[in-house]
Amino acid sequence: MYKIVLLGTGNVATHLFKAFQNSDRAAVVQIYNHREESLAPFKKKVATTTQITELLPADLYLVSVSDNVVPQLIGELQLKNALVAHTAGSVPLLKKADRNGVFYPLQTFTKARKLDFKKIPLCLEADSSDDFTLLREIARSITPKVYPINSDQRKTLHLAAAFASNFTNHLYRIAEKICHQNSVPFEIMYPLIEETALKIQQINPLEGQTGPAVRGDSQTISKHLNELDSPELKEIYTLLTKSIQKENE
Amino acid sequence: MYKIVLLGTGNVATHLFKAFQNSDRAAVVQIYNHREESLAPFKKKVATTTQITELLPADLYLVSVSDNVVPQLIGELQLKNALVAHTAGSVPLLKKADRNGVFYPLQTFTKARKLDFKKIPLCLEADSSDDFTLLREIARSITPKVYPINSDQRKTLHLAAAFASNFTNHLYRIAEKICHQNSVPFEIMYPLIEETALKIQQINPLEGQTGPAVRGDSQTISKHLNELDSPELKEIYTLLTKSIQKENE
Repeated sequence: MYKIVLLGTGNVATHLFKAFQNSDRAAVVQIYNHREESLAPFKKKVATTTQITELLPADLYLVSVSDNVVPQLIGELQLKNALVAHTAGSVPLLKKADRNGVFYPLQTFTKARKLDFKKIPLCLEADSSDDFTLLREIARSITPKVYPINSDQRKTLHLAAAFASNFTNHLYRIAEKICHQNSVPFEIMYPLIEETALKIQQINPLEGQTGPAVRGDSQTISKHLNELDSPELKEIYTLLTKSIQKENE
Repeated sequence: MYKIVLLGTGNVATHLFKAFQNSDRAAVVQIYNHREESLAPFKKKVATTTQITELLPADLYLVSVSDNVVPQLIGELQLKNALVAHTAGSVPLLKKADRNGVFYPLQTFTKARKLDFKKIPLCLEADSSDDFTLLREIARSITPKVYPINSDQRKTLHLAAAFASNFTNHLYRIAEKICHQNSVPFEIMYPLIEETALKIQQINPLEGQTGPAVRGDSQTISKHLNELDSPELKEIYTLLTKSIQKENE
């Protein structure tokens, strides 16, 4: 059984802890947070500590804190010959510990949502092939979706995720506002949104593009622009319509 | 058993035909298309005709052809006291037949995709309450998701769908391009895209917004803009980032 010390108690750390509870090949043996109250939800389930100098021996020290705090926290560790990996999408492989790795789950984590970790891709990197193998073993104990991803590729994924997740969610927000302004329940759109997201797994997004922009249906485009009262939404509509048409020229 | 004559053989018509094959309260008794070859896939399953003057008696004539052809085709029908409904999102309730209705499934239809009609919302409208009730009975025989939606509301849904489906799909396309330019398999993003689309059913998109824009993380935003080489993508990134920040002020 691989032993893991988990540093952090946020969304990602909490989801990882739960995933390892269901693993039969890896277990979290201790959780660290510098604030006692953040450890409360874990106290009955696992050893905890607020002292960075009192970490237990482990095969992997998994640092799952805010991206901007990762380098500092890893710098404070006083471990000899230990493998230290972080879960931050925007932080490169650091060379601060004796052995370094990245253990990045590509997903949007919200505390209120239950997630099946078996469906979450883990992007791994390590500064030695032995440690990569060790990380892969541990990762495979919670998900079959394990990918070797170097720091440049991870940067790419982080950027692509801004478009595919952050901006997409904002378009949902715009659709919701348009619905509510005109007394239409937004829930009517859930199946369309779901199908649009799932369809790309079978038909690539270029082929699967539908709507007035790709059809060159300028009559519908004009109608839509007239219906939008906000200059900001008109601008977004126009820019994305042009971009679709350019892509399909 | 309600009898339906289906006019049209495209994606929506084909999905509707399959849905009614599984209904125990409504059945398609005939399919019309002016082109003989379009009827070929249906010949063994149901009566077909290329003659608009030879339609069978039915409780509902369901017109499922391209939005821009709907008014003309309905104008050509020579039916007495029959209920004629169309499936077009962008066409209002027409007053061309003796009894008129709309039977609009809000979904993105692609021939290669299997769809469970039980998950597809049907938006209904009719020019009499009796005919609305009849449409509702027929609709409920294929899906529990049935909504009364007038022509103004349908216009709203059509516009909102441009943002939530057409533009969203284009953002997936952009993410795919970013991945491929940097040798990252796009499939790694599928679970993130799926979760982003499903999360809104539990947490509204305003609350569920994540990423550098909503965090005000200007360092990551600058990094992302530097990594984008296309001026067009920089423009989309900047505009959507501003829009998220305005929304969350």
